Amino acid sequence: MKERLTIVKVGGAIVEDEARLDQLLTDFAAIDGPKVLVHGGGRRATKIAASLGIESKMVNGRRITDADMLEVVTMVYGGLVNKNIVAKLQARGINAIGLTGADMDVIHSHKRPLKDGIDFGYVGDVERVNGYELQNILKQGLFPVMAPLTHDGKGNILNTNADTIASETAKALAKFFDVTLIYSFEKKGVLSNPDDDDSVIPSITRADFEKYVADGTVAGGMIPKIENALAAVDAGVKQVIITLATAIDGKHGTTIK
Amino acid sequence: MKERLTIVKVGGAIVEDEARLDQLLTDFAAIDGPKVLVHGGGRRATKIAASLGIESKMVNGRRITDADMLEVVTMVYGGLVNKNIVAKLQARGINAIGLTGADMDVIHSHKRPLKDGIDFGYVGDVERVNGYELQNILKQGLFPVMAPLTHDGKGNILNTNADTIASETAKALAKFFDVTLIYSFEKKGVLSNPDDDDSVIPSITRADFEKYVADGTVAGGMIPKIENALAAVDAGVKQVIITLATAIDGKHGTTIK
Repeated sequence: MKERLTIVKVGGAIVEDEARLDQLLTDFAAIDGPKVLVHGGGRRATKIAASLGIESKMVNGRRITDADMLEVVTMVYGGLVNKNIVAKLQARGINAIGLTGADMDVIHSHKRPLKDGIDFGYVGDVERVNGYELQNILKQGLFPVMAPLTHDGKGNILNTNADTIASETAKALAKFFDVTLIYSFEKKGVLSNPDDDDSVIPSITRADFEKYVADGTVAGGMIPKIENALAAVDAGVKQVIITLATAIDGKHGTTIK
Repeated sequence: MKERLTIVKVGGAIVEDEARLDQLLTDFAAIDGPKVLVHGGGRRATKIAASLGIESKMVNGRRITDADMLEVVTMVYGGLVNKNIVAKLQARGINAIGLTGADMDVIHSHKRPLKDGIDFGYVGDVERVNGYELQNILKQGLFPVMAPLTHDGKGNILNTNADTIASETAKALAKFFDVTLIYSFEKKGVLSNPDDDDSVIPSITRADFEKYVADGTVAGGMIPKIENALAAVDAGVKQVIITLATAIDGKHGTTIK
């Protein structure tokens, strides 16, 4: 039987709120066994870019990462956010190691091709995650902290969605571990009634999902989120949990399997 | 007999000059055997701080790292500079891994105490380098790229001199490897005549050093540099080389042993 591994993804909103981040890191430190933290970047990069006179360009509501913005996200995600999390975990007795996809060639990506005529700039679509190197690190008792940056193998860092990093890492490590992937989130889980924060659906299978989409229980942005979770499960991840950032112990939220 | 290991320290002036950095990384990639790159930060941090409206505070000609400046150096050294070097080395077939002292608890420091009444702020004096973790990484075929940042184990990143990181890392790895420490530099080596760039002294022992200081051949900032090199040799480092950034092959410059 494979050892259990927990991957926790934490979004930008928590990363930039020091009190909530501290609590999340304390909870992360308390999780037994090997574990990985994947963090987003948040609006910090946008704010710092604005202070530096770099405009955040949006096309059809989606962010474009031009060369200047790439420098900012490399600084903020790979430096400021990542290293502060690593130092805070070290203070909690967790031997953390901060990684972008370039470090140890952990995540290789390519620059996103034009899509509907839109050039997203220096955005990376993940090609492969080096699960072997990651499990080597984990077996040494180290705990990876992964920034939402990858590289193309030609010397370029690329900005990459943190949810994707989390799910691709979970899939790559499923060969070596029984992987639980936890997406921390603003709600207690997937809700059956959007007006009732306590109406958490405890577990969702693919059959349940199809039913919930058909009857409208699951809608909007939750559809691709659950589709991605189901794809991870199909690729060997044991379970995906969508839960509150204050409830990442694996016993709360919605379990997708 | 221990395996040979090369540690190259590259300063801020080269780090911020893309063409010179590219050449140095190509030369670094060509060095045989296990190796470590230690980089400085350069004036990039000062420039970015100025753009963000953060003043670089100096007291008696020495830089003070206040909380705002610490955020900037964490971003710039740990993110922008470090991750770009890692990506560029990956493009050269070198499986690099970027590290600050917080990652893997590699360099533990404490905040510098008041000195002559001056509070340097968030500056770290190195307490210990975890040579064991570093040699583990090196033995996996990985190549550490070290940023001039350490941590205090209490959750704080501290700004730390890159020369010190290089010499302390060299000492800690001397237990496991035959270490050559190369300081890249603006001159061809230690010069016997400061007006003649070709007057490189090929090798300096402690006895030579004392003679050169007494007769004035070695003076100014070169005295502490050579003193630090001799201290590293006393602590087990095989040799320290001071050389041009375009001549880091171990066959040029001044060898201190």
